[in-house]
Amino acid sequence: MEFSVTIFGSGAAVPTRGRHCSSQMIIADGYKMLVDCGEGTQNQMFLYYKRLRQLNTIFISHLHGDHWFGLPGLLSSMHLGGRTEPLDVYGPQGLKKVLDSVFSVSGSAFQYELRIHEIAVNEPETIFENDKCKVTAFPLQHSVPTYGFIFEEAKPELNLKKNAREKYGLGDADCRNVKAGADFVMPNGTVIPNAEMTLPRRKARRYAYCCDTGYFDGLLDIVRQVDMLCLESTFDNKYSDLAAEKGHLTALQAAQIAKQSDVGQLLLTHFSARYKGGKIEVLVHEAKSVFENVVFAEDGKRYEIATRNSN
Amino acid sequence: MEFSVTIFGSGAAVPTRGRHCSSQMIIADGYKMLVDCGEGTQNQMFLYYKRLRQLNTIFISHLHGDHWFGLPGLLSSMHLGGRTEPLDVYGPQGLKKVLDSVFSVSGSAFQYELRIHEIAVNEPETIFENDKCKVTAFPLQHSVPTYGFIFEEAKPELNLKKNAREKYGLGDADCRNVKAGADFVMPNGTVIPNAEMTLPRRKARRYAYCCDTGYFDGLLDIVRQVDMLCLESTFDNKYSDLAAEKGHLTALQAAQIAKQSDVGQLLLTHFSARYKGGKIEVLVHEAKSVFENVVFAEDGKRYEIATRNSN
Repeated sequence: MEFSVTIFGSGAAVPTRGRHCSSQMIIADGYKMLVDCGEGTQNQMFLYYKRLRQLNTIFISHLHGDHWFGLPGLLSSMHLGGRTEPLDVYGPQGLKKVLDSVFSVSGSAFQYELRIHEIAVNEPETIFENDKCKVTAFPLQHSVPTYGFIFEEAKPELNLKKNAREKYGLGDADCRNVKAGADFVMPNGTVIPNAEMTLPRRKARRYAYCCDTGYFDGLLDIVRQVDMLCLESTFDNKYSDLAAEKGHLTALQAAQIAKQSDVGQLLLTHFSARYKGGKIEVLVHEAKSVFENVVFAEDGKRYEIATRNSN
Repeated sequence: MEFSVTIFGSGAAVPTRGRHCSSQMIIADGYKMLVDCGEGTQNQMFLYYKRLRQLNTIFISHLHGDHWFGLPGLLSSMHLGGRTEPLDVYGPQGLKKVLDSVFSVSGSAFQYELRIHEIAVNEPETIFENDKCKVTAFPLQHSVPTYGFIFEEAKPELNLKKNAREKYGLGDADCRNVKAGADFVMPNGTVIPNAEMTLPRRKARRYAYCCDTGYFDGLLDIVRQVDMLCLESTFDNKYSDLAAEKGHLTALQAAQIAKQSDVGQLLLTHFSARYKGGKIEVLVHEAKSVFENVVFAEDGKRYEIATRNSN
């Protein structure tokens, strides 16, 4: 079952030619959740994803402009594109008031129901749950109220028994169906019950998104052993004072958090505009000196979230 | 002296892969004025112009989102990019309040002075004037208060006498200086007074921007004989009812206005997302059936505004 993240924006406060402001889409078994919505997110979606209207839910981490200035345009385009299904948007207190203000002057009235849910949690708390995914929000440490999110698969796949593929002649599509719980009908009509082909479900995969935040001890327990940890790494260690002052992380700190939390994979994002083109290697190199399994976000790229133990 | 328009966004309400929402930059003798600022304008400026900080003044036609949703991000990036010169932004009533609301939740405080001037004119009125350009605003006919703008060169070039170039051995740079009013020093030290090389100044060029608007008779006199008329042409004539209902123009109407107003050149823009790629030809063809000198806006393209009689 798909559990992936697609990056629409991996830049920090100021976009650059190759990096839009923060935005990414998590897909859990077909359920599509946008996390943050920097300016130009709808254009990036057109470019890399296309199916704007099919977005299911939106989460906004905080109200610094580079994390939500694309939201009014995206919401408007969903309306103009014919969306009629209600849309839930989760974000910090103040989001509803400012969107009301924006849509009031722009004379917008949507044909779909826009439901804004303002987050106000002091410790990890489930803010969203359906049959595909559960989302937990928790406070980060930044200059304005900011939330991190953990996305957890609701229904992880069953594991396939060794040799089941060969034994029953399962194709790729059959394997997916069986892992999702289906029985298998062989070409001769024999029905193989699901339990004969599978082992118990594997542990639900978890993806944590923490952007923006400075370092704080409490974060380690919150993201412990997630399968993929997406952390901001605005600066390299040379700018550690600036990072601390601005409530950001260095790549070194991000890797230390990943290591101490024993996560599966570290996904770096939110890179300062000073790291243009190949300069991003400075951050990756710095992180890899502490934690090996590092990938860095690139606009338009999709990352599969693999089970931690498989790494 | 440069008098040009560079398109950053030529799309209508919903951006498409090749067309961002409305935005363009008029340069009058080095003075840079942004007109409208749809989402992603700052990215388009990076791509096609680069010198974000050097923008001098901004004009917003109306508060539909596709004409200003890029403004908060652009203003923020100017601050983060180190701008310290005050910035004047002209736009409809309500602009100040909504920007205050946006920047209040995003915790923004700029190091430059942001001066919002709310326009409220019932007939053509000069709202801005300096030694490079004069800007007149006038009401258009749309579903929310909307203004058109006429940009007029403040100091048009002197005309060069026939044969002056050959007679005094003027190079291209010399010609520009002489047209701007300078005397010319020949290689032997002889000073040729400007008056000996020039004829009286030519008429100041004028560029009119009308987007968004439905057709109304009064528009003809306002834009009469401008050198370039930029008109929205959201639809082709097949959708004339929809255009009328939404307060937009068809390409046919735009061309009729251009013809009846006896303008130099017609620049079409604000194309509905239905005209993807080559389909734009429908609009151009329709317009050219009525008025020959038509160009259509393309994101990233710069158009020289030529004197009307030279067309």
